[in-house]
Amino acid sequence: MKIYDSQAAPNPRRVRVFLAEKGIQVPMEPVDIVAAVNRGAEFRKKNVTAGVPVLELDDGTYIAESVAICRYFEEIQPQPPLFGANAKERAVVEMWQRRIELNLLIPVADAFRQRHDFFKGRIRQVPAYAEVQKQNAEDALKWIDEDLAGRRFIAGDHYTIADITAMIAIDFGRVSKIAIAPDQKNLARWHAEVSARPSAKA
Amino acid sequence: MKIYDSQAAPNPRRVRVFLAEKGIQVPMEPVDIVAAVNRGAEFRKKNVTAGVPVLELDDGTYIAESVAICRYFEEIQPQPPLFGANAKERAVVEMWQRRIELNLLIPVADAFRQRHDFFKGRIRQVPAYAEVQKQNAEDALKWIDEDLAGRRFIAGDHYTIADITAMIAIDFGRVSKIAIAPDQKNLARWHAEVSARPSAKA
Repeated sequence: MKIYDSQAAPNPRRVRVFLAEKGIQVPMEPVDIVAAVNRGAEFRKKNVTAGVPVLELDDGTYIAESVAICRYFEEIQPQPPLFGANAKERAVVEMWQRRIELNLLIPVADAFRQRHDFFKGRIRQVPAYAEVQKQNAEDALKWIDEDLAGRRFIAGDHYTIADITAMIAIDFGRVSKIAIAPDQKNLARWHAEVSARPSAKA
Repeated sequence: MKIYDSQAAPNPRRVRVFLAEKGIQVPMEPVDIVAAVNRGAEFRKKNVTAGVPVLELDDGTYIAESVAICRYFEEIQPQPPLFGANAKERAVVEMWQRRIELNLLIPVADAFRQRHDFFKGRIRQVPAYAEVQKQNAEDALKWIDEDLAGRRFIAGDHYTIADITAMIAIDFGRVSKIAIAPDQKNLARWHAEVSARPSAKA
């Protein structure tokens, strides 16, 4: 088993933090995404959409998509539960995971991707959309802050994958000057707590 | 238990098809999204991001996000499994579900949302991005067709939620003139099969 990894992108970090929380060690093979190795024909045999990370199982199966990789490890090692501990919790975690992805992580990623030189010639860029998604991400931070008033973590009383997704999204926002505003005290308190966990350095 | 539903959007259909496949009946309460009832303060108490569908549990918990709702029903009634039957299958289904969402469903939705009058004043529109996402969706149909050559369904030998997501995405593409191309025989064969299931009418 091994993971095709990169230190230069938010999604591989999501998987590394998840594994650190589980206490699972998996050999990592770096992929040079700056040189676009992931966009070549050889890597696309592992993942048709060319993204990292990709998990290679011992039977040769490739699992792409960060959350699919995390879910695999949740299945083979349920403790500590990072997707929720029962049917209702798992639905609530999935809800928050998706709210954070659709309203924060994707906007943060677009704010970078849609205008940065790194993606020039790699995707069809629309710089005006980068600006709109920056505003959308800032709107999301506002309501997430309000919603966090009564809760310790994103999806409730327990640390879950939704916290990991929110943390990597906010941290990646730096490159686009998207940040927790000074009056967003709940988000700041939450971000300080999740960032202080040893897993945050993974 | 009930579901806040709409006949006018692709995501509520995703949940209805899923429930039909499971043979589960849930009372549906229509929400007038054309009149933007979902964007009002009252509905936002149920779902802060204002989307439909929303599942209301008997204990008063609200579960928003289509896939979170589907996952809840998978948990309380595992048969037939629509998220995969074991750890590896569940990872593969999650991978395909996300590939379809990120590369097809979101582009199809953006091709409509980013330019249609329905969303004028509701979101920050960038019409140039609608055009780019139409092209991205068409690119996705091409590689999905190639990838389907050796398989009956999107994620393997069994019908799963990834097939539902792909079907509702392709069907919603009609409003933006995104369609399976005449030479995409694998996609056409797959689409005919999933559309012939009774659940497709849900």
